[in-house]
Formats: sequence, C-alpha cells, structure tokens
Amino acid sequence: MPQQITLYATDFSPYSHSVDIALLEAGAKYTRYEIDLMNKPSWFVAQVNPIAQVPAMTYGGPDVPPEQPSPDSIKLRESQLLLQFVADLFPEARLIPEDPVLRAKVRFFMDIVRTKFVPAWYGHFRGGKPAEPFIGALEELQALLPPSGFVVGEWSIADIAFVTILARAEIILELDHPLSGWSDGEGEMIIDMLHGHRFARLAQYHRDLVERPSFKSTFDNVNHR
Amino acid sequence: MPQQITLYATDFSPYSHSVDIALLEAGAKYTRYEIDLMNKPSWFVAQVNPIAQVPAMTYGGPDVPPEQPSPDSIKLRESQLLLQFVADLFPEARLIPEDPVLRAKVRFFMDIVRTKFVPAWYGHFRGGKPAEPFIGALEELQALLPPSGFVVGEWSIADIAFVTILARAEIILELDHPLSGWSDGEGEMIIDMLHGHRFARLAQYHRDLVERPSFKSTFDNVNHR
Repeated sequence: MPQQITLYATDFSPYSHSVDIALLEAGAKYTRYEIDLMNKPSWFVAQVNPIAQVPAMTYGGPDVPPEQPSPDSIKLRESQLLLQFVADLFPEARLIPEDPVLRAKVRFFMDIVRTKFVPAWYGHFRGGKPAEPFIGALEELQALLPPSGFVVGEWSIADIAFVTILARAEIILELDHPLSGWSDGEGEMIIDMLHGHRFARLAQYHRDLVERPSFKSTFDNVNHR
Repeated sequence: MPQQITLYATDFSPYSHSVDIALLEAGAKYTRYEIDLMNKPSWFVAQVNPIAQVPAMTYGGPDVPPEQPSPDSIKLRESQLLLQFVADLFPEARLIPEDPVLRAKVRFFMDIVRTKFVPAWYGHFRGGKPAEPFIGALEELQALLPPSGFVVGEWSIADIAFVTILARAEIILELDHPLSGWSDGEGEMIIDMLHGHRFARLAQYHRDLVERPSFKSTFDNVNHR
C-alpha cells in the first residue's frame, strides 16, 4: 500500500507534467503543490529539493501540509527517476514492462530523450544553435520505434517522458516563437519537415501519443501549456 | 533462462569494468570481446554500436562469434543501462533491491555519479578545471550513504557504478598523474583531504567497496587498470 505522495510541480514544466501523467495513469492519490519558479519558497529549497528544481516529491512519513514537509519523508527529484519510482510503486499500472529486454528498451529511449533530444531542443529554441542536432535526435528516436504502437508496443514511461516535451516543442515551432531568436519561418520549415515523408512514423506516433487520455486530460488547457 | 550475452569491452575502461562486475556477481555465462579503442573494428560500429563506445552488449539471437554479430540479437549500450539490464535479467543476484524506495535511492546515487561525479572528475583530471566540483560531488555522494554498509545497505549496482571510477581516480591522484596537467602535489593534496576527517564516511565506504570479491578479483592486475 503506497504511502503519502506530495508532488511539487510547475504547470508549464514538461517534466512536472510527465510525473502528473504517470501518477494519473497509476490512479495514485497525491497532493500536488504548485511551485512558482520565479519565487521559490525557501522551505522548498531547504527541506525538499536543495537544487530547487521541479518536479520533486516527498514520499512517506506523516501526513503534513505540503508547505511543512516532514524530515521523515523520502525526498526524490529528477523527472525520469520519478517516473521509474511511480512505475515501481504501482506495478499494476504496468507503466514499465516486466520483460528485461523491453525494460532496457524503455530506459534506452528515455536516455536518448534526456541526453540528446532535450539538450538539442533547448539548444535550438533557447540557445541559438542550429536545428540539425534536434532533427537528428528526432530521427534517432523515430528509428527506435516499432512499426506501430508505442515505444515498446504498450504504453510506458518512455512515452510519458517524451510526449510532454514533444507537444510543447510543436506548439513553439508552429508559433515561430518570438523567444526563439529564429529567423522568420524557421519553425514553419521544421514543422513542414516533421509532417513530411521523412518523419512519417514519428508523426503517427505523435498522433497516438496526444490521443492518450492521461495526456489529453492534462494538456488541453492554458495552464498546462 | 537468459539467452546469449556478448560484452564488448575495454580492459582499462571503468564503465566496461562495471558491467564485468555485474555479470560476475550474477554468475552469468558471457562472451567478452576486447575492443581496441585506438583501432575499433568496422563491424563493431556498423553492427553493434553506431556511436562506437564501450561497453556495448548483444543479447539473444543465435550463437555467433563476437566478430560476426547477428542482426537478430538486441544491441544495448551505456554502462548504467547495462547494469540495470543485468540486474533485471538475474533477479536472484539481488543487484537492485525490490523495494521501490530503495530502488529510487540506487538510481539517484547512480545519477549523481553519472551527471556530477564523472564530468567533475574528468573535468579536473583531463580538462584542467578546478578540483572543487569533484570534491563537491564526493561530498554529495558521501551525504547519500547510510551510517554503514553500501549505498542501500546491501550491495547493489549503485556501488558497482561508482567503485570502478573511484578506484581509478585514487590511483591517478596518488601518482599526481603526468597526463593531468595538475600543479605539483595537487593529487597528493586531494588524497590527504580524502583521508581526513571531512571524508571519513566516504573513506570507510571506499574500503568496503574495494574489498568486495567481484571488484578485487577483476581489478588487482595491470590490464584492468
């Protein structure tokens, strides 16, 4: 029987959103506390997450208000580690398969998302770097997909770790986002490429991802964007 | 019943060494193929690991010589993912605990090793960067240790992921390694710090780590250094 779960999160953060989705898929009862990243509470840094990032989680210990975390709860952080924790805590939700090879595939996909896709995307969107590493990461992820379905066929934390970032990237590309520092039309050019023949499998996967009820019900509003 | 395992590895690589230790702990039957990093076989890059790094593994498929990998085997890479795979494949070896909280602690420790300790160490040793981030990473890891024993009490892949790098770092520091570009005595100064009061718990843990038979039997020779 899982103990108390408090998730410290920020609505627009794709990483926070991924943990929300996993907890929703697991049918977990949890307290969600919104952290204002522009004005982080001092108790959050002192008592929950010394590196002050969201998402973070407390697990176990006594039932306390989220603003008064107990020293007796476990403090966890880093979204992909939280996804694995939720998958372990709620095995009946089948968020990661039991087969060792499929588990390895889930983790490998997540690792490419974390170590290649995320830095390449933010490097392009915020860092003024070329689009090629971002396109390359998407090609690498596409190549890992089976002919149909999710990363390992069934839905898993690999899909959750990717969809929340991909969906936001698409919106930003469609808007030719003013914060991006891209030349005019660069977002549109990438969107055209993603809708073309080269990324046909990824586009199908993308459609499957955003149809997942746990994603749809937590993204289709302004706050979660 | 696990299928065929072929590990592509390099003797002096701490990452290769960690997978060797996990397989040894698991009592796994496997084929080990030494990759010469100065002269990587083209079939290795083409058919096993496109990013050409060790360790890499093939799992399953027909029994074939390591130089002729089958397209029907699964190709895996990245040492920490391989450690988790070996732990999943041989649950009776108890290389990762079953309890979700302890599993999270194992993964968190491994994550700090990978994302902080390793870059800080190579940044200092090879990159000419100051020692402070390396010392800071060691302090952070020390703070995660229980009062005695290994990372989660019992031996786990968290310990394996750390010991192979730590042991090599100590040798390099003791030698004031000529490749390091350190000023004279810098290695000795750090060694003194690591043997002092501030790192007493880490030093005890270090002694426990290197006494582990799977480490001792695979490190106490020139090739594995």
